[in-house]
Amino acid sequence: MDETISLVLFSGTDDKLGAAAVLAAGAAAMGKPVRIFLQYWALDAFRADRIAANHGLAPEAAQAGKAAMAAAAAAGQSHWTETLRAAKELGEVDIQACSLSMDILKLEQSDLDPLVDGVEGVAAFYINAGTGQIVFI
Amino acid sequence: MDETISLVLFSGTDDKLGAAAVLAAGAAAMGKPVRIFLQYWALDAFRADRIAANHGLAPEAAQAGKAAMAAAAAAGQSHWTETLRAAKELGEVDIQACSLSMDILKLEQSDLDPLVDGVEGVAAFYINAGTGQIVFI
Amino acid sequence: MDETISLVLFSGTDDKLGAAAVLAAGAAAMGKPVRIFLQYWALDAFRADRIAANHGLAPEAAQAGKAAMAAAAAAGQSHWTETLRAAKELGEVDIQACSLSMDILKLEQSDLDPLVDGVEGVAAFYINAGTGQIVFI
Repeated sequence: MDETISLVLFSGTDDKLGAAAVLAAGAAAMGKPVRIFLQYWALDAFRADRIAANHGLAPEAAQAGKAAMAAAAAAGQSHWTETLRAAKELGEVDIQACSLSMDILKLEQSDLDPLVDGVEGVAAFYINAGTGQIVFI
Repeated sequence: MDETISLVLFSGTDDKLGAAAVLAAGAAAMGKPVRIFLQYWALDAFRADRIAANHGLAPEAAQAGKAAMAAAAAAGQSHWTETLRAAKELGEVDIQACSLSMDILKLEQSDLDPLVDGVEGVAAFYINAGTGQIVFI
Repeated sequence: MDETISLVLFSGTDDKLGAAAVLAAGAAAMGKPVRIFLQYWALDAFRADRIAANHGLAPEAAQAGKAAMAAAAAAGQSHWTETLRAAKELGEVDIQACSLSMDILKLEQSDLDPLVDGVEGVAAFYINAGTGQIVFI
């Protein structure tokens, strides 16, 4: 159970990021090293000036889904950023921004929330992923 | 070829569920054990009172995509629920609801279609996935 | 690092295809064989008569995302088709259309761009994927 799991995050909506955070925390709690690679809109969601903002939901969520998510948050469901912070305390969770997406979105590492540990290219991503599981979210 | 493949289903649109059902059935037919873990809108799509409803398509499908899908259904293309039922007869296919998503959507197992075999947390999901492939759909 | 990575492409928006192309090229550059399996809207995006068209972005991209992508293209960022062509020159990259999606969209192989190497069913996909990583995009 100690092989690395690599999560490539592409989407920046709060439901997808919530699903990703739970998968990361679960793996960390079980002793699996977790590598998170942030691309496109997921990277955008980790900008320091908007990480706590409302990032919306997948279009299919519709009104009933929005109401369920809002009710869960009001009832004390952790925000995905809190889940990721807890995952980092529980185990080995490394969060890297994709250098190509940084270029496209014209970001510097100083623009990102401190949850992000660094910036790397796709070659470094594969080296760290090794033969472990790769999940695109 | 007999290592488990785990499909984490997040999206509840009929096109994504169709793609997932085909991947599940193909794996089952080849003797691979299949584990399906239902989160968020995919879980919502398995509610007994709406599993047979129209769940829409990904937004990018547009008019031409909708017409193609409707024509395929009219020409006898199996619904994804039928493909999953056939997959369960062909091989080892276990479908579990994510307990956290059950809480968010305020569902009980009795609200779900009998295709769903049970409810489990993310730790159980990882134990069953082992070192096999994990695919997020 | 020489185990196959299989990318199942479902989405046909330019941002998702861009992410997929970068993951394919990175793997190819590192000597990993890459298998790409085209389903639904990703397959539609490889039609010879529209592969070079604007395929839009994920709905969450919003105006700021659209502007960033347009600026990156104007600044010389490669189109995903060019990235895939380069990946094919760099390493072993095989692109197959899913036969079931071909039926749904009523396509023949002659309708597809020459980047696509052939048409196969899900069983052939799994045989070629072996125990390597499977990523759904």
